[in-house]
Amino acid sequence: MEIRIYLDEQRQLVEERLARYMLEPIGVFSQHIEAMRYSLFAGGKRIRPILCLAGAAAINSSENTRNLAMPVACAFEFIHTYSLIHDDLPAMDDDDLRRGKPTNHTVFGEAAAILAGDGLLTLAFELVSGPAATGIADKSRLRLIHTIAGAAGSLGMVGGQSLDMIHAGEQIGYDELRHIHQSKTGALITASVVCGGIVAGADEKQERALKAYGDNIGLAFQIVDDLLDIMATTAELGKSAGSDIKSDKVTYPSLFGVETSHTMAKEAVQEAVAALAPFDRQADPLRALAHYIVDRKK
Amino acid sequence: MEIRIYLDEQRQLVEERLARYMLEPIGVFSQHIEAMRYSLFAGGKRIRPILCLAGAAAINSSENTRNLAMPVACAFEFIHTYSLIHDDLPAMDDDDLRRGKPTNHTVFGEAAAILAGDGLLTLAFELVSGPAATGIADKSRLRLIHTIAGAAGSLGMVGGQSLDMIHAGEQIGYDELRHIHQSKTGALITASVVCGGIVAGADEKQERALKAYGDNIGLAFQIVDDLLDIMATTAELGKSAGSDIKSDKVTYPSLFGVETSHTMAKEAVQEAVAALAPFDRQADPLRALAHYIVDRKK
Repeated sequence: MEIRIYLDEQRQLVEERLARYMLEPIGVFSQHIEAMRYSLFAGGKRIRPILCLAGAAAINSSENTRNLAMPVACAFEFIHTYSLIHDDLPAMDDDDLRRGKPTNHTVFGEAAAILAGDGLLTLAFELVSGPAATGIADKSRLRLIHTIAGAAGSLGMVGGQSLDMIHAGEQIGYDELRHIHQSKTGALITASVVCGGIVAGADEKQERALKAYGDNIGLAFQIVDDLLDIMATTAELGKSAGSDIKSDKVTYPSLFGVETSHTMAKEAVQEAVAALAPFDRQADPLRALAHYIVDRKK
Repeated sequence: MEIRIYLDEQRQLVEERLARYMLEPIGVFSQHIEAMRYSLFAGGKRIRPILCLAGAAAINSSENTRNLAMPVACAFEFIHTYSLIHDDLPAMDDDDLRRGKPTNHTVFGEAAAILAGDGLLTLAFELVSGPAATGIADKSRLRLIHTIAGAAGSLGMVGGQSLDMIHAGEQIGYDELRHIHQSKTGALITASVVCGGIVAGADEKQERALKAYGDNIGLAFQIVDDLLDIMATTAELGKSAGSDIKSDKVTYPSLFGVETSHTMAKEAVQEAVAALAPFDRQADPLRALAHYIVDRKK
């Protein structure tokens, strides 16, 4: 399959739904809602929602299943966007540029940015528990909410960001690096694939396979992120390149060198694809996404 | 009924459950979890969880129903605590003192405080969607999550805090003041009572009555908060007294004077109690809570 065409199509479908599910900037709360929309519609790659849709398609590639998965897919983008807004804050990574645009707090101020993040996180749960997702069985929706909250929360993404802040500037080893990444970025990526499967009615074995796939592409994704920070330009990335070196951050390339890191990413992708062995051609989008993740340029 | 004995009993039950549902400060995320626990166990009044339990008891005062409502009640305290941590941040209200103790960010730093808030918010949804709440019917749990998210989110508490920040220092009128309070503090208070009712199987008419009760005590609660800021001492409040006047904040007493504000609070309590007319003696805790709210000293 032609991955670029597939990604464009899926991204467009996701954009439409994000626009439908997102609050309109009207009424007394319009300024706050504008701040949320600014970051949500800043042109992200929509990798997590697409992974969610591809995870659902691996079990059942019908349009009906894709439609069922849409609110869940969009909830992941709400959460991802909230995490970027909070991570960019002066008290955290203090970044000025994100997706090629000034970061949320540089445009709206710190208070508004904190609240925009809080609002997007809360909206994710409102979406999956609300009318947009009534097509999914109640029991599955509760499992989805529980899985999303677990991955996004204190033992997942939020905990990972906290570890990252605590160890900033320290010469941590591989175990710690792995732990930070697994929680900070890996958990939500894995959850997006697994939740797609839950929507589509995956059985236990299928869920385990999707989890193994997600864990491996999450690892590959992070290694490639580290490599791109060294090798790409700021214009290509849409965020400040070279910031890891500047901040003396421990990364895969700083621990293992560029070449070994690249090999590690490729091996993780191979393991991800191997985990998909029980699935038929319906999992081809997941297979193509795995390869795309190491080949991407931003 | 003796309100002080009732409040002490209920608070103790809530404390036990909060301790059970809260993450333990062990493992790699222990520092982050310590920051969450610091604010969660800082000796709050636990008004929202108690309102949730009393809302459930108004429909069914059995111990079984109270136990069912416990995870929902505690979710409200997680969310309330997160909102206090974020509101106290330097970029927001910049407060040093809360519940008689240094605020979260003064102890753990801004980044850790932002993440402690994020973690508590996420944990609220994990709790209600997880094993602790399986006794509640799936459909009701989804309604609970949707109600909580709606009240806590961008058209509720988060939106209200955003309005409050935007209008800080401005001479707003009564309509705007009412709007800020309804969203910033009223929505979550109302939701706590209504969600208690949902757990206990309230019918539509009962839910409407609980909502009217909640809206009115929310208003009374806010007016009394404004009055206490003028009249109590910092030692009594556990947070800086007189801060509204210092920051030139528009409040009920600044718009209407102390005496009229007090009358307004009393009238709201009367309306709250009137809304409980359809309920029998099982709603006595709600009635007592309404009176307590205007009579409290902190």
